[in-house]
Amino acid sequence: MRKTLLTAAIAVAFGAVSMSAAIAAKSDSVPKPDKDEPIQPIAAAKVKNKAMVDLGAKLFFDPRLSNSGFISCNSCHNLSLGGTDNLETSIGHGWSRGPINSPTVLNSALNIAQFWDGRAKDLREQAGGPIANPLEMANTHVLAVQQIQSIPGYVAEFKKVFGTEKVDIEKITEAIAAFEETLMTPNSRFDQWLKGNTKAITKTEYEGYQLFKSAGCIACHNGINIGGNSFQKMGVVEEYKTANPAQGRAGVSGKDADRFNFKVPTLRNVELTYPYFHDGAADTLTQAVDIMGRLQLGRKFTDDENAKIVAFLKTLTGDQPKFEFPIIPPSVDATPRPKPWEKSAAQVEAEKAAKK
Amino acid sequence: MRKTLLTAAIAVAFGAVSMSAAIAAKSDSVPKPDKDEPIQPIAAAKVKNKAMVDLGAKLFFDPRLSNSGFISCNSCHNLSLGGTDNLETSIGHGWSRGPINSPTVLNSALNIAQFWDGRAKDLREQAGGPIANPLEMANTHVLAVQQIQSIPGYVAEFKKVFGTEKVDIEKITEAIAAFEETLMTPNSRFDQWLKGNTKAITKTEYEGYQLFKSAGCIACHNGINIGGNSFQKMGVVEEYKTANPAQGRAGVSGKDADRFNFKVPTLRNVELTYPYFHDGAADTLTQAVDIMGRLQLGRKFTDDENAKIVAFLKTLTGDQPKFEFPIIPPSVDATPRPKPWEKSAAQVEAEKAAKK
Repeated sequence: MRKTLLTAAIAVAFGAVSMSAAIAAKSDSVPKPDKDEPIQPIAAAKVKNKAMVDLGAKLFFDPRLSNSGFISCNSCHNLSLGGTDNLETSIGHGWSRGPINSPTVLNSALNIAQFWDGRAKDLREQAGGPIANPLEMANTHVLAVQQIQSIPGYVAEFKKVFGTEKVDIEKITEAIAAFEETLMTPNSRFDQWLKGNTKAITKTEYEGYQLFKSAGCIACHNGINIGGNSFQKMGVVEEYKTANPAQGRAGVSGKDADRFNFKVPTLRNVELTYPYFHDGAADTLTQAVDIMGRLQLGRKFTDDENAKIVAFLKTLTGDQPKFEFPIIPPSVDATPRPKPWEKSAAQVEAEKAAKK
Repeated sequence: MRKTLLTAAIAVAFGAVSMSAAIAAKSDSVPKPDKDEPIQPIAAAKVKNKAMVDLGAKLFFDPRLSNSGFISCNSCHNLSLGGTDNLETSIGHGWSRGPINSPTVLNSALNIAQFWDGRAKDLREQAGGPIANPLEMANTHVLAVQQIQSIPGYVAEFKKVFGTEKVDIEKITEAIAAFEETLMTPNSRFDQWLKGNTKAITKTEYEGYQLFKSAGCIACHNGINIGGNSFQKMGVVEEYKTANPAQGRAGVSGKDADRFNFKVPTLRNVELTYPYFHDGAADTLTQAVDIMGRLQLGRKFTDDENAKIVAFLKTLTGDQPKFEFPIIPPSVDATPRPKPWEKSAAQVEAEKAAKK
């Protein structure tokens, strides 16, 4: 605030702008960012290999990777909807109730690891998971590869991108990951402010950001993705109560101390990625901020404080990815046809494994 | 064939083209179309109202029109896949087994009526159907309108397009229909041939078309959409056996004579719209052509004849619609959240109606 007044005073003193412009600046500008803000602006995606990205986009939207022929990556990471499905937990094969809230795919390449429990080290490893999860796409990697291998339009693209007509799960997930790496959302109003445009955010939003820092939210939600770079316990001060059975890092490490340690979600585009938390239990940002304040920081935000933080969070919505809706190569006579109402391939695999 | 030779002979006689070009023409060209071919080329879509089409595209891709928040128009009329879901019958709310094969939305504005039984007179009327069908999107129109009305980003667009902020189901379906009217697929190789490019199709494809006409397929599959312009009995010469309970026009007219009278499907993009028939029972074009020949025409096509007709059918794939994947306005705190695992709104309505 002091800085704004100073700027206005200088403008008047030098006569560089009219009095009315100086007043406008006084009311419309907020202070400049510090030199060492704990959040950094996000850059637009650089496409390294366009042919691979195009192939990945087709695979991302292809429901034939699922056993039913109905569920694609985009079903749960819907790029019309902030890279999520906006459901508490996702709907999977046979209308299964998914185990956990779908995290956004937007800017996900910046995360320290993938999944809420970080069990996949990168997007490539992640992409193979849902394909074979009985509650999600309910396929097997073998069948998914057979499906894609049988489609001449795909084989030609694999040849172009990888120099071989042999499709395998590694190439499929590499292409999907290459597409996902392009799903960056630069140019949010907050990033514009970080880059020096002091009119990009309002006074209320600015105050919300200051409170976000002073209250301690920034301790976990920081860096270029405003989260996504550490694992933290859900329920530090007060226990988080949920019917959701997910255990977080404990499921990966086997250590009891890691119970309820989850990857901190990114706050970029958080206005679009409701509902919140790993169980999707918080419908609104107001609820999420309130719960986080109490459980993580031991602080009950006033309505005014909560509203300011929410206003700040809504400045984090960036330019959504722009791309032409992909046309996918058709199946041919030899392509196996999906049987959505029969027992899924993943279920059969799971039963075989259980018998052994 | 005679025409090809004649063309080549004329070319040589007049010295208009080199000998090698004449030979190329002889081997690569097919005869020109007749002046009164029973199939006409399709024109590119003309966008009358871009703002309405853009709004319609968002609604077409918005799963919040469904009770689950998971199923959009595009789920079953997937524009990556020829405007269909490539399933025998569609998957609906709660993994319901849909009653009938999803017809393509591509070029559907040209059809005489909508749905296999033609019970909707146009696309606008059609669009309201699946929203409230308990086996499809399982919503009610009232809830769908409430959902859209609660979203400020949509309200602003309705204001721009319709001059009012009041959302109703008529405006929703009008916008969806406006988008669907743009989903034309011009420039198929067959259309190029119809327009005079005698090299656009091969000799085999040309022969397939001649057989398609002489065998009688053309009696029903004709006009600009190569079908879609009449209702015909499925199983004229021989009965069509299916477990699917759909009755066709009889369900609309109540007349027993209309039993198994279905709208003749378009053959445009038929390479992409497998599986075939109202029950989706034919996986391949080869099967479909064989069954049609026997049941409708009383003719068993030889393998060679069948292959030629299939080759012709594959020339009917046009340019697929190109558009930027729509970003949909987010829900706000006041927007009702979907409850995909509870009894659906359409189910509740249906039960109420049954009790009365």
